[in-house]
Amino acid sequence: MRYFDHVATNPLNPEVFNAMLPYFKEEFGNPLSVYGLGQSAKQAIEDARVKVAALVNCKAQEITFTSSGAESNNMAIRGIAMARRKEGNHIIVSRVEHHSVLNSARALEKEDFVVTYLVPDKFGMVSPADIKKAINKDTILISITHASSEIGTIEPIAEIVKTAKEHNVAVHADGVATTGNIPIDVMQLGVDAYSLSAHQFYGPKGAGALYLKRGQRILPLIYGGIQENGRRAGTENVPAIVGMGKAAEMAKAELPTRMAHVKKLRDKLIDGLTKIEKVHLTGHPDNRLPGHASFVVEYIEGEGMLLMLEANDIYSASGSACTSKALKASPILLSMGYSSSVTHGSIVFSLGIDNTEEDIDQVLEHMPKIIKRLREMSPFAKEGWGAIDDLEESKEGNHV
Amino acid sequence: MRYFDHVATNPLNPEVFNAMLPYFKEEFGNPLSVYGLGQSAKQAIEDARVKVAALVNCKAQEITFTSSGAESNNMAIRGIAMARRKEGNHIIVSRVEHHSVLNSARALEKEDFVVTYLVPDKFGMVSPADIKKAINKDTILISITHASSEIGTIEPIAEIVKTAKEHNVAVHADGVATTGNIPIDVMQLGVDAYSLSAHQFYGPKGAGALYLKRGQRILPLIYGGIQENGRRAGTENVPAIVGMGKAAEMAKAELPTRMAHVKKLRDKLIDGLTKIEKVHLTGHPDNRLPGHASFVVEYIEGEGMLLMLEANDIYSASGSACTSKALKASPILLSMGYSSSVTHGSIVFSLGIDNTEEDIDQVLEHMPKIIKRLREMSPFAKEGWGAIDDLEESKEGNHV
Repeated sequence: MRYFDHVATNPLNPEVFNAMLPYFKEEFGNPLSVYGLGQSAKQAIEDARVKVAALVNCKAQEITFTSSGAESNNMAIRGIAMARRKEGNHIIVSRVEHHSVLNSARALEKEDFVVTYLVPDKFGMVSPADIKKAINKDTILISITHASSEIGTIEPIAEIVKTAKEHNVAVHADGVATTGNIPIDVMQLGVDAYSLSAHQFYGPKGAGALYLKRGQRILPLIYGGIQENGRRAGTENVPAIVGMGKAAEMAKAELPTRMAHVKKLRDKLIDGLTKIEKVHLTGHPDNRLPGHASFVVEYIEGEGMLLMLEANDIYSASGSACTSKALKASPILLSMGYSSSVTHGSIVFSLGIDNTEEDIDQVLEHMPKIIKRLREMSPFAKEGWGAIDDLEESKEGNHV
Repeated sequence: MRYFDHVATNPLNPEVFNAMLPYFKEEFGNPLSVYGLGQSAKQAIEDARVKVAALVNCKAQEITFTSSGAESNNMAIRGIAMARRKEGNHIIVSRVEHHSVLNSARALEKEDFVVTYLVPDKFGMVSPADIKKAINKDTILISITHASSEIGTIEPIAEIVKTAKEHNVAVHADGVATTGNIPIDVMQLGVDAYSLSAHQFYGPKGAGALYLKRGQRILPLIYGGIQENGRRAGTENVPAIVGMGKAAEMAKAELPTRMAHVKKLRDKLIDGLTKIEKVHLTGHPDNRLPGHASFVVEYIEGEGMLLMLEANDIYSASGSACTSKALKASPILLSMGYSSSVTHGSIVFSLGIDNTEEDIDQVLEHMPKIIKRLREMSPFAKEGWGAIDDLEESKEGNHV
């Protein structure tokens, strides 16, 4: 299997699994139980917290464990907005956000919040100048992704924070696609909240975390017991949390090697695929996730490519896994100025530490044939459907 | 180890763990991915949904997977309340609810909802007549636990539903302590929503579910992608969901055997412990969870008993694990009319399929000695602190 969908999920690292194992067996205690069995589970959680904190350079007590990156995003946006609602009701997000951010914001619109959706440039970059323009006296929160898993572009979070701080606005960054893939320093970024997901860096599914700067007020999303310092109730998923800690420790130790590995393969992939006629890289050419290569292929539907790649044991995606079944035009590519028909030719290869040079060779061997075949079959190629001819025009004035 | 804290958490059944294993290894796909690896994960989730549905007698599509019982409770209460907010703003809960229910209700009070907290009788039973009295034209939701993990009393949910239906009020029951421990039939109960937690029936931590009657409107707690039919976003915790399915299947198959096993041991434990002077069963004498034995021991603090039991390798609890560190008087026992000092002598033995007759013999051997020793050490015994003398009086009129 040649797996190129690491933004959807990663395989669990076997060393991480081994670290989790005792917590599926003899160490099954509830961390809130006062006896030894509970206390060793509690200690395991606190050890994991230290490791996750080290990966993003914060204090352990600034990490709250959740069940997923989506939960972390929801908690940050709703939690901070509700905690600050007396100060204002305006929130700023971008059009390149993940659905867990966009739909959290939309839900708040039904509760008397006002949301500005910033349009990025053609590379998917959000402009700090646009942020500045959008801020008004009611603005309490900005939530911008650190990098979109669909286009790989890394956003200028530190600059956005600088602008926000001049106006006493809190900043949350969705770091699900970045954490474990590039160096993260929340102190340097200056963010007030930062979301993480373990299965994006070879940890288990079912484990996420939210960095919350000390002193940042927030309301819980899940109310109940005193777990996670009263910020997130529910019996802790001890094995998953332990796994997230181990995965964070490994990601930190291996980050330079991992980055160099995927970047080298990615560059070869981009070089090779963009040589094919009318195949274009999407997202930023340089300022992007090291393992991320995303394209639009003119005159073709992404689904066809995925199926023909799968027939050759190659697994990639046409966009965000969370919406892949909807078969709708990608809102992110639309916001960057691509026409609806072109966005259907979207394909994303996200690389991981398990990918090899041979994997890339296989993609480069099969993709030209697949594209040729699909274009021959497609009536669209003749009609000009799915061609890029309107990128620049449609970019203007679509501030929705 | 003699483990008597199954309401805090259960050990994971080894067969359940084996069912989860492939999903930590080769079957790591994201269920939303269109290729085979994703689709087999998706199928595993749907198979688990059928099994969980069978355990509570509903349709598979009426089950939404969550990360915990606490999340299910939060989702049901907030989600149904917000979906029905235009119809009214009044919610009814009881004083014997878990903190995830009580604190969800309290959070809604800050958003213009009005909550009635019903006081139970001295056995912890909520009266359907009190429900009827509490319902007014603004009532939209009633949330009552099917059984409290602290006192074991099984509540008359079917009767409560009957009353509620006469007034078009939705009913949620917290089934975390009951599911897998007694037969559950949500059709027969008539509830609109029912919360489950996998680690309460030998499944994994990190997996919960919410039964939602077909047609019941609800807003999500976690917004984002299209997972769980748009009801609960976030990449699915596939291994945990598979484990919950397997645990549900086993619980259904083994339920009569499991119930008979724990009930026999429990009855022996209750008989033995209530022979000790000034040790009293709390909760309902008959209408209680088959593996649940809870007591107050006059003149003694629960913590001391727990520590001395632990020294003899016996693990029990003084109340809900979620609040065990707070060392506060149990609000549930207070609501039943016990005085604050008596509640400190609370101790809960919750039995599981792994307990043996020898375990009970050990408790019955050690407890009289421990109680004697602690009473000799305690100044309270002489001062009458922690004595039951006010149960009946304090019961009256404490509708808070």
